[in-house]
Amino acid sequence: MSIAERPTAGTTASVYERVTPETKEALVRELTQLLGMRHVLHSPYDLALYEYDASIERGRPDIVAFPASTEDVAAIVKCARRYHIPVVPRGAGTGLSGGAIPRYGGIVIVFTRMNQILEIDYENLRAVVQPGLVNLHLSHALNPHGFYYVPDPSSQRSCTIGGNVGENAGGPHTLLYGVTTNHVLGLELVTAEGEIAEVGGWTYDAPGYDLTGLLIGSEGTLCIITKIIVRIVHLPEAVKTMVAIFDSMQDASNTVTEIIAHGVIPAAIEMMDQVILQAVEADTPAGYPLDAAAVLLIETEGLYESVEEQQQQIVAICEKHRARQVRIAANEIERQRFWAGRKNAFGAVGRISPEFYVQDGVVPRTQLPYVLRRVNEICQHYGLRVGNVFHAGDGNLHPLILFDSHIPGEVERVRQAGHEILQVCADVGGSITGEHGVGIEKQAEMALIFNDTDLRVMQQVRHACNPDQLFNPGKLFPLPGRCVDMKQL
Amino acid sequence: MSIAERPTAGTTASVYERVTPETKEALVRELTQLLGMRHVLHSPYDLALYEYDASIERGRPDIVAFPASTEDVAAIVKCARRYHIPVVPRGAGTGLSGGAIPRYGGIVIVFTRMNQILEIDYENLRAVVQPGLVNLHLSHALNPHGFYYVPDPSSQRSCTIGGNVGENAGGPHTLLYGVTTNHVLGLELVTAEGEIAEVGGWTYDAPGYDLTGLLIGSEGTLCIITKIIVRIVHLPEAVKTMVAIFDSMQDASNTVTEIIAHGVIPAAIEMMDQVILQAVEADTPAGYPLDAAAVLLIETEGLYESVEEQQQQIVAICEKHRARQVRIAANEIERQRFWAGRKNAFGAVGRISPEFYVQDGVVPRTQLPYVLRRVNEICQHYGLRVGNVFHAGDGNLHPLILFDSHIPGEVERVRQAGHEILQVCADVGGSITGEHGVGIEKQAEMALIFNDTDLRVMQQVRHACNPDQLFNPGKLFPLPGRCVDMKQL
Repeated sequence: MSIAERPTAGTTASVYERVTPETKEALVRELTQLLGMRHVLHSPYDLALYEYDASIERGRPDIVAFPASTEDVAAIVKCARRYHIPVVPRGAGTGLSGGAIPRYGGIVIVFTRMNQILEIDYENLRAVVQPGLVNLHLSHALNPHGFYYVPDPSSQRSCTIGGNVGENAGGPHTLLYGVTTNHVLGLELVTAEGEIAEVGGWTYDAPGYDLTGLLIGSEGTLCIITKIIVRIVHLPEAVKTMVAIFDSMQDASNTVTEIIAHGVIPAAIEMMDQVILQAVEADTPAGYPLDAAAVLLIETEGLYESVEEQQQQIVAICEKHRARQVRIAANEIERQRFWAGRKNAFGAVGRISPEFYVQDGVVPRTQLPYVLRRVNEICQHYGLRVGNVFHAGDGNLHPLILFDSHIPGEVERVRQAGHEILQVCADVGGSITGEHGVGIEKQAEMALIFNDTDLRVMQQVRHACNPDQLFNPGKLFPLPGRCVDMKQL
Repeated sequence: MSIAERPTAGTTASVYERVTPETKEALVRELTQLLGMRHVLHSPYDLALYEYDASIERGRPDIVAFPASTEDVAAIVKCARRYHIPVVPRGAGTGLSGGAIPRYGGIVIVFTRMNQILEIDYENLRAVVQPGLVNLHLSHALNPHGFYYVPDPSSQRSCTIGGNVGENAGGPHTLLYGVTTNHVLGLELVTAEGEIAEVGGWTYDAPGYDLTGLLIGSEGTLCIITKIIVRIVHLPEAVKTMVAIFDSMQDASNTVTEIIAHGVIPAAIEMMDQVILQAVEADTPAGYPLDAAAVLLIETEGLYESVEEQQQQIVAICEKHRARQVRIAANEIERQRFWAGRKNAFGAVGRISPEFYVQDGVVPRTQLPYVLRRVNEICQHYGLRVGNVFHAGDGNLHPLILFDSHIPGEVERVRQAGHEILQVCADVGGSITGEHGVGIEKQAEMALIFNDTDLRVMQQVRHACNPDQLFNPGKLFPLPGRCVDMKQL
């Protein structure tokens, strides 16, 4: 199909075919021939596992395929293209915005078999990995040699680097080191035509357009990524982790602002409020006082001397803002205990609520006190409890709205509250997502921060790379007629 | 023009019109009405100044326009669109690859009047600037408050931030802090349709496609940038600068590799070889021994204690690799003297050669000794002298090939040598440009590191944003029929 014949951008939802039983039969036959019977799933029982991710969205694929190589991926894409049906890439399904949900069916490509570290070059600080590699497995391989891979989403024990690239994932240590896009230098990919291409490379600032940057965070809508060149870095000489306990959120927020404004950028500054503290304490006791209003978990790293100096400065700032107590981890075991509470916070909330909905707004740090107050007001208005656990240093909020979907109308109230929170974030010059992506969840909210021209430019790029809209259709952009409406289940 | 009617990607050079005398008259009338007589140049005498930049390319515009606002830029683009003629944005004309040369005439937009700092937010570490702002002027405004803007190309006293964004400019301190793209968070721009749009924003990781990243380094081929949101950072508490003198390039190169592999990342590691040293010493005496084979200029910065520790480690590594001497700047005056030699190196070469041609390849650091040897062999083969002054820490080479264009055949030999050097860089897994851009100069060499599919994907993106190819036509991509040929003057 030449460019001249391509459908107009914006008609996202109507250009591919639904899979008929006949198509499915033919596809299964072709893909089985290509990949072997064990690597193609098509029964309703098998497919059920792939109809959800960690979001609250659902969508069943028609077929799930497990390629073993880039060439397999290219063949699958060509096959899908021939039948004009959607293709959705999937890592570990830990995404929070529905990015891996096959909204309109089609083929889901799962990268379980493409999970290898292909190359590690310690001297030039690079590694080449396959998209199905579990995030933490890379650092496990690097650690004995004194290196690690920086981006550390809370799900890093299960999420894949391919998925991280798709969503431009963050983590607590983005404050000092940036998100996934700051750690990926090059990609191998399969285009909409089923061709294999490479973008970026071994060096910074590859010539021509920075397509590596464009593709990171494009949520599977532009191409299928099959190989990733990442930066690796030395383990820091020293790490100091401390916990500062506050009697008010305002004091904790002001502490964050002053630490950053002081020019001391820690590796991580995480905040947990009382609701979260109580849940965490019940689940993974770290000795937090249950009546504290907020806790900051602050980590500095670098050379011994600088870490020591930073720590003293941070303690002084915490005390200036009336921290009730500042505890410094005496050893690695205590440090791990501080972090365990934070990393398991989402799970711990399961103890105090049957369900929760996590939002992912970003605001300028100086707006944190105001926005946190508004989050509470909004949730109160809808009669909902909310806990906050988030990357305070980045101004990246994660309000967890607690709910029970058995209560009539509760889900709608939760969605409405989530929407209003994002509206507040957008109003203060922030953004509707820090690291969880847009996916299905925040399509409507894209219109809060981008106008029609902005969105049209993005759509043109999508159209250029993916003219038939077969890659992950129905994602990322507001659907026609729903631009500023609230989504309804 | 709808997408369906757009010309096919790849027909770069043929889709716009040449400016006829009648068109020019009409354009001058319209633009004068819009901008005022003083802000539209059209006489051959006035235009001559804008037919070159710091590269060896030439091309005369038909009209030069000086907008005062984003709305002016939008009106100029709409005007150009109506007459279907090229539009080329220009900063200070310091570019080394011909990015600002109007290859096929048309309107050159110069941003001299859009040179303001619009906003500085010290607490959230952001500034908003116009594209015509001179790079160093931003740091001058920030310094008294204890902040600065990181990217520091050697031309920073004259180059503009808009130009830096267009070329994704680097500088000595990219080693620790990255290039322009790592310091720009959002852009306002004018599209090919003359509409005003915004991409990115105040926060990291804006939702949707990372168009900010895509546009940075796109060399004016996708849109015209009219406003830039940049990161600002605190001035470091301490800076230590040292110069290490070596009797062999090999020792100096191995020192660089070991410093980085040791996990100590200085803010900058610059290398100068004997040819450059002798030129620099004649121009800006810094006391370098004239018989030294290579000098490393190394700067570390951060907290007092960590800088002290880093410095000791670096000195030890230099000595292990047989540094003849390591000098540490005793004060800011001596530090400035060390840097003056480096920053004026290109100018100083004027003392030993009537002309020079600077290349800009990147190689993995571990390949430096091999590639430097090959650079010398290639230049010897063509009977040319070459000096090397470059960002060694990044593996970003800048061989300066000395020549005299009055000697018949010399320019051709220089180009051929330059091409072969880039071929070597590509062969060892490096890149054809580190920070100077592709422009006109390295169009042919794009084919050394990208295959047809890679280039087609980039062209599709160009086509999506700039369907009529009116923005900076004839740049960045190999021209038809010249993909792997050498360029001829």
